[in-house]
Amino acid sequence: EKSSGFSCRGWIMEVWKFCKEDTNRIIFALKGGLAVLLVSLLILIRAPYHVFGSNIIWSILTVAIMFEYTVGSTFNRGFNRALGSLLAGVLAIVVAQIALNTGPVAEPIIIGISIFLVGAITSFMKLWPPLAPYEYGFRVILFTYCLIIVSGYRMGNPIRTSMGRLYSIAIGGIVAVSVNVLIFPIWAGEQLHQELVTNFKSVADALEECVKKYLEDDGSNHPEFSSTVMDDFPDEPAYKKCRSTLSSSAKLESLANSAKWEPPHARFSHFFYPWSEYVKVSAVLRYCAYEVMALHGVLHSEIQAPYNLRITFQQEIQDATTEAAELVRCLGNDIRDTQKSLKAPILKKVHATAERLQRAIDMHSYLLISTYDQPPDRQLPKLSHTFMRKHSRRLHSWPSREVDVFEEEGANSADFVPKMQALESTAHLSLATFTSLLVEFVARLDHLVEAVDDLSKMAKFKIQTA
Amino acid sequence: EKSSGFSCRGWIMEVWKFCKEDTNRIIFALKGGLAVLLVSLLILIRAPYHVFGSNIIWSILTVAIMFEYTVGSTFNRGFNRALGSLLAGVLAIVVAQIALNTGPVAEPIIIGISIFLVGAITSFMKLWPPLAPYEYGFRVILFTYCLIIVSGYRMGNPIRTSMGRLYSIAIGGIVAVSVNVLIFPIWAGEQLHQELVTNFKSVADALEECVKKYLEDDGSNHPEFSSTVMDDFPDEPAYKKCRSTLSSSAKLESLANSAKWEPPHARFSHFFYPWSEYVKVSAVLRYCAYEVMALHGVLHSEIQAPYNLRITFQQEIQDATTEAAELVRCLGNDIRDTQKSLKAPILKKVHATAERLQRAIDMHSYLLISTYDQPPDRQLPKLSHTFMRKHSRRLHSWPSREVDVFEEEGANSADFVPKMQALESTAHLSLATFTSLLVEFVARLDHLVEAVDDLSKMAKFKIQTA
Repeated sequence: EKSSGFSCRGWIMEVWKFCKEDTNRIIFALKGGLAVLLVSLLILIRAPYHVFGSNIIWSILTVAIMFEYTVGSTFNRGFNRALGSLLAGVLAIVVAQIALNTGPVAEPIIIGISIFLVGAITSFMKLWPPLAPYEYGFRVILFTYCLIIVSGYRMGNPIRTSMGRLYSIAIGGIVAVSVNVLIFPIWAGEQLHQELVTNFKSVADALEECVKKYLEDDGSNHPEFSSTVMDDFPDEPAYKKCRSTLSSSAKLESLANSAKWEPPHARFSHFFYPWSEYVKVSAVLRYCAYEVMALHGVLHSEIQAPYNLRITFQQEIQDATTEAAELVRCLGNDIRDTQKSLKAPILKKVHATAERLQRAIDMHSYLLISTYDQPPDRQLPKLSHTFMRKHSRRLHSWPSREVDVFEEEGANSADFVPKMQALESTAHLSLATFTSLLVEFVARLDHLVEAVDDLSKMAKFKIQTA
Repeated sequence: EKSSGFSCRGWIMEVWKFCKEDTNRIIFALKGGLAVLLVSLLILIRAPYHVFGSNIIWSILTVAIMFEYTVGSTFNRGFNRALGSLLAGVLAIVVAQIALNTGPVAEPIIIGISIFLVGAITSFMKLWPPLAPYEYGFRVILFTYCLIIVSGYRMGNPIRTSMGRLYSIAIGGIVAVSVNVLIFPIWAGEQLHQELVTNFKSVADALEECVKKYLEDDGSNHPEFSSTVMDDFPDEPAYKKCRSTLSSSAKLESLANSAKWEPPHARFSHFFYPWSEYVKVSAVLRYCAYEVMALHGVLHSEIQAPYNLRITFQQEIQDATTEAAELVRCLGNDIRDTQKSLKAPILKKVHATAERLQRAIDMHSYLLISTYDQPPDRQLPKLSHTFMRKHSRRLHSWPSREVDVFEEEGANSADFVPKMQALESTAHLSLATFTSLLVEFVARLDHLVEAVDDLSKMAKFKIQTA
């Protein structure tokens, strides 16, 4: 009993945390309750019920189906619902009139064929990619058409049936939209804006975290690649966030789609606000995040440059990273504050540090080449004991030997998966890979700055004069 | 008139192509039409209408809402619909009985409060991430509850109202499921299976395409990075497909969710088929695809290793790529044929080529280091004219100069985005980056083989004895 009480308390704590994280969730829930209550009052109170009749239950259905989290998607659903109902209503009335005039024998046949055709055509249109966002509209057309024409056939007078239904759907729609817009509106545009700003921060954090780990890690407590490639890297929270930005494209696109339906509000105060530019900026940002993923891959690769080689270039790598992350954060903050500041000086600084890094690698590139037929201490005089220990440990598992061993005993076992062997000799070049990817990240920042620049022009961000 | 006729014909051609691409689309559309027709017949024909009464229109609504593309998602929706309706029905009857016993004054108040609470709670539960897949179920609970309790209040006898409605919902559900399962069923599992196989092929193709371009490109007609980073690369169809595998995780997950609802069928003939393993394999495959994206980044980077350095290692790069792509394709084919073959020999071959590549880089690593204070022709005796021309062209845009120019004239222009300058001297190391990423790709194949192995064990793929 005690443990169940504890888990129940834990569950309540979790719900509480979930609500505190974003109070909009509570607001949305209360608004949802209010909207159905309002529309139910139309039936519970005698006066409106006598005016509208039992058709009014359709408004409840409309509210339950139309009420969405953001204003934009509610508008979008409402549009689908309204246009779908209207089209279906008109079509149903036309077909019903034609069927009526053909006499009582042909009437059900014509109605049956029309239902089949509407069902097949709307089902097909839903699959057509450009029309996929209006999937809900096609559902509405289908069931509204069927309901009107079928109940018209049984109860007569399809026009009155459909008008009554359209009225109540309209009432439901108006209630849903009013509650959603007038009481603590949750704007899709605002959500999109914050999501993009968060993505900028995630990429900057992940870059810094990854480089920090790269420079810290002395190889002594390096976990095996095999156990970590698919893991969540619990000690790298920023990486996790960065990875989630890679899969956020669908979310951002649907938010942008919803945001387009919203009227100007708050900070986004002019018509035709360029929401689709947000999606473009996020795409460029994703290209930067791909480089972070690649850097992360090098960090956890089995082939590692020795620690003391890495710290030789520590200053340059650190500088380039700090400046690049700073620029990404600065771009994110500019978007957050809907302002436009001069990026050229920061970008120039980032370029300068990247060039310094390239030049440092260039000048010391003799450190990167093979220790082939030379003792390692001649090439790298500062070699630490850690490295030597690691080096000698690696020599014991020299690949050619491993392959031979496998040849002898592994051939019969179908389950045996031989492991890739890294050649120690190319390990130094791993540093070049890391820095190249870092430089490539910086090169992609040009495009990011340009994309943010385009956005700030089209969205008419205020120009900040420092 | 003529141009409109032409565009109409073009549109028809496009629809035709869309249908031919996947005939399931036509089948789905016809099935959708058939399902609504069948359920409409219950009203159009006199006998069943007299049995079921006007409540039968709820079956039309149910079919229109429940009919989904795949069998699994139809089952899933049906489950949501059934359980939602049942819960809402029971709750509504209980609350209605309580309200009835409190007398005519309190009754509407209790009903109103209960509607608000159900609305708020279901709205909140929809947002709770673990319950998000059952979003539709909560909608069903909300509107069914409202409909039953409200029409029960107005028409009396909520039990009879709800029973009549549950009957007709059940009829609609049975029709939708029967048509969907019995007539040319479209299985989510089959779709998931094919999608994963396609992803394997895309990654293999993209890898080969990328390496082919890298070895072909002699730098003479190299498009500027700036114009291509965000482009669609029309000459690289495989890259485009590979990129789309990166964003396919949501699709695969929803297919796997649907597939779990499906009974054993065709090749997937045992219960508890491990659909979630498919998602895991696709995640590992995505990690390989990240490396392809990084390779693609190097291919289109501004900093490029000279052509003749690249062709020095052509054979080794080509071999490693061919073997790696072969292995990926082989894994894809095994999944396609639901068979399990011995991967160790192929994997060993891939490792051998990757090691040869590493050793080649290692032996010739002196080629990669700086040409610093040495004329380039001493370091690379085979330098072609193309490279020399490119090299000298680059020297004119030496970064320090560019930065100075910017300093003088760019400071006033807020729109000016300075471009990152690549140092020619580190260009040779770009080859090391490319090969490291390729080797890393091979290293990740171990995990891919392991993941496919796990899948084939859990899915009981037949073991192929060659």
